[in-house]
Amino acid sequence: MVFGIARRKTSSRKEAALRSFGADTRMPTLAIVLDLIRERGAVSRVELADATGLTQATMTHAVRKLMALGFVHEVGTMPTNRGTPRRLLGLRPEACYMVGIQFDLYSAVGVVVDLAGRVVVERRMPAPGEREPETIVAEFAEHVRAMLDDAGLTLPQVLGIGLATYGPQDREAGELVVPLPTPTWVGYPLAATLEAATGLPVVIENDATAAGIGVQTLGGSTSSFAVVFMSGGIGSGVILDGRPYRGVTSNGLELGHISVDATGPPCHCGNRGCLDEVAGPTGVVRSAMADPALAARLGLGADLLTDFLRIARATLDGDAAAAELIAVSTQRLAVATVTLVNLFDVGRVVLAGNAFADIGPVYRDALQEVLDRSVFMRDVHTVQAELAGDVTQAAAIGGAAVVLRNLLESPFAEQRATAVG
Amino acid sequence: MVFGIARRKTSSRKEAALRSFGADTRMPTLAIVLDLIRERGAVSRVELADATGLTQATMTHAVRKLMALGFVHEVGTMPTNRGTPRRLLGLRPEACYMVGIQFDLYSAVGVVVDLAGRVVVERRMPAPGEREPETIVAEFAEHVRAMLDDAGLTLPQVLGIGLATYGPQDREAGELVVPLPTPTWVGYPLAATLEAATGLPVVIENDATAAGIGVQTLGGSTSSFAVVFMSGGIGSGVILDGRPYRGVTSNGLELGHISVDATGPPCHCGNRGCLDEVAGPTGVVRSAMADPALAARLGLGADLLTDFLRIARATLDGDAAAAELIAVSTQRLAVATVTLVNLFDVGRVVLAGNAFADIGPVYRDALQEVLDRSVFMRDVHTVQAELAGDVTQAAAIGGAAVVLRNLLESPFAEQRATAVG
Repeated sequence: MVFGIARRKTSSRKEAALRSFGADTRMPTLAIVLDLIRERGAVSRVELADATGLTQATMTHAVRKLMALGFVHEVGTMPTNRGTPRRLLGLRPEACYMVGIQFDLYSAVGVVVDLAGRVVVERRMPAPGEREPETIVAEFAEHVRAMLDDAGLTLPQVLGIGLATYGPQDREAGELVVPLPTPTWVGYPLAATLEAATGLPVVIENDATAAGIGVQTLGGSTSSFAVVFMSGGIGSGVILDGRPYRGVTSNGLELGHISVDATGPPCHCGNRGCLDEVAGPTGVVRSAMADPALAARLGLGADLLTDFLRIARATLDGDAAAAELIAVSTQRLAVATVTLVNLFDVGRVVLAGNAFADIGPVYRDALQEVLDRSVFMRDVHTVQAELAGDVTQAAAIGGAAVVLRNLLESPFAEQRATAVG
Repeated sequence: MVFGIARRKTSSRKEAALRSFGADTRMPTLAIVLDLIRERGAVSRVELADATGLTQATMTHAVRKLMALGFVHEVGTMPTNRGTPRRLLGLRPEACYMVGIQFDLYSAVGVVVDLAGRVVVERRMPAPGEREPETIVAEFAEHVRAMLDDAGLTLPQVLGIGLATYGPQDREAGELVVPLPTPTWVGYPLAATLEAATGLPVVIENDATAAGIGVQTLGGSTSSFAVVFMSGGIGSGVILDGRPYRGVTSNGLELGHISVDATGPPCHCGNRGCLDEVAGPTGVVRSAMADPALAARLGLGADLLTDFLRIARATLDGDAAAAELIAVSTQRLAVATVTLVNLFDVGRVVLAGNAFADIGPVYRDALQEVLDRSVFMRDVHTVQAELAGDVTQAAAIGGAAVVLRNLLESPFAEQRATAVG
């Protein structure tokens, strides 16, 4: 190893990044303060100001807005050394709810999440498969109604629905820009139609980015990390100081479509040797089908994700042929993740998505080994591989969280707060 | 081609991004306003407010600071339909100067730049080669003095020096974190020693990021694009809405150290089949040396960059063997650039760096062809390949620009303005 001398602390940088929020545009401030109150349980304005570097005046203003929205209330007081006791703030988890749905061709998961980020209802829905968008949207609308019934919620208690799915997408229009699974899906008014069918605002989000936001909702709010998301395909997300990296049109981070083998098979995207084709469920299942004994032994021939999960479970059960395919996949995914880290410079990589349901720890351990020996800036900082708290729900929870963030980061929050307060 | 239907406008997004500056932290505002005044020549506060989306009050405040710094002055008036003529603002290009030096093992270029971004002095310096840092720093100090003499400038007229070079680096400490070219370079107080030797503040910056900032200084200030930088090695940079992407420790975007061939040669960085080794001057010159007839014909055997430039020129002169090596390099670089675009989602890629001095158009054209057929989001937006205005100077100019930006983006600008005004 040529490098290996200087290892630096990044804490002063992190503090500076946190402090910089103090000077920032007003709306993200609300999300940051809300997250801190959620994390700490009961906390005073002074503690909040200390923890964020915001001025007392800004904090007072932010807290007033959150109270006007009904999201935060006073939960008690704390004696101080000098005079007036400090009033403690706490979250009202039941103040509002958000719906999140993560879907691709092979899976669909819905959740209802409260303001504390807790899943109050979860629902596995039928996979969209190759069906038309109007059918799927009608089905989603039914499931949303059923989930709200299960949770005992009425529409006014629900902020909206976040759809976490694959790209390319036009987030602003609420449409996909890819003819998958059928040509009808391109430019189909996905968000608008689901809005009309449910009476709730609907936003769309990249599934991997949503998983990143979901991981944050379950943990620290101003951290920086990458997400590698694997369901039917592979995607990724990057969260920096608590905010998703979006690029010019929110269509970046397509880890599944970076070439890991210039002479590899052509991909539908126009590139060759894409990670999706070489290391994702597509590649693993294709290789498994080329081995008829293995395919028969594992009962393959269902949909892509189901077949992949069978190969993954067989690996855990000691099937050597299955294990070999998974080993190739883990190594290739790890090399692509090093690319992601070498380009985005993050210190943490979180794995999420249905494909990691059982086999996640195997991918995580292989990834850690490759990161430790191959990451370019490893002598500036280490890079940690982790599994999301709930790999199968993270993206749906993130979809729900996006709805809340959009409110907190838009001028509408101010109006809503004024109207309520 | 499976995609190919919806092609969207991004102008509303861009406008939104521009508008968001209005709500932003105060210091970048100065840089944005200064860039606009530089671009437009003579401009009124009202026009500035319209173009940036900043409020009149914010604009008045920003202009007052820039005038206090001596960077901007009133250059005339413009009649209006109703009453008072508008006062026009203009840049004072001679208000201050910045020094930029781009270097790696094989090259060193210095520039003195005025506030208008114009190069008033340029100087080719001896390449550092494998020499020790104290020698190089002493040499740089001599060259800085000589450049300032040539420009007829005294120290108080100069804001500082920006060193644009390779990584990993510790920007805050002003040190490299890599034992190249010799072990002494790791943790050597590069910025501090040059500061002591010149009496000027010194900052360090990644060379590819600097090239991106240099391209901006020569053009639009709030644009988004990627830079692919090739000198002795390959690096990249991403500028989003006018700001460099930095990641957690400013050590991302190491395009030269992403694997483009999982079974390729091991790289000193710990990875295999790195772009640097496969497609950069390292790989091209290694392949050329393996062909003794070619090596003799081109007189190879100088340093890496000189040899690469000889191969490049031979390609332009019609040498088929040389052209074959350059073709492999262009294709591999293009595939890696697609990775960069698919991950960062930018609509423009600018090539910069000494290695593109003659052969730049060949790389640009090959890149454009690959981008057109392989970029994942090409039906959401096109991706344009370009050569930087001056491929050999862009990083040095960007190094100089970083010095100015640091001033404008730090609270110090306020102090300085107060002290001056």
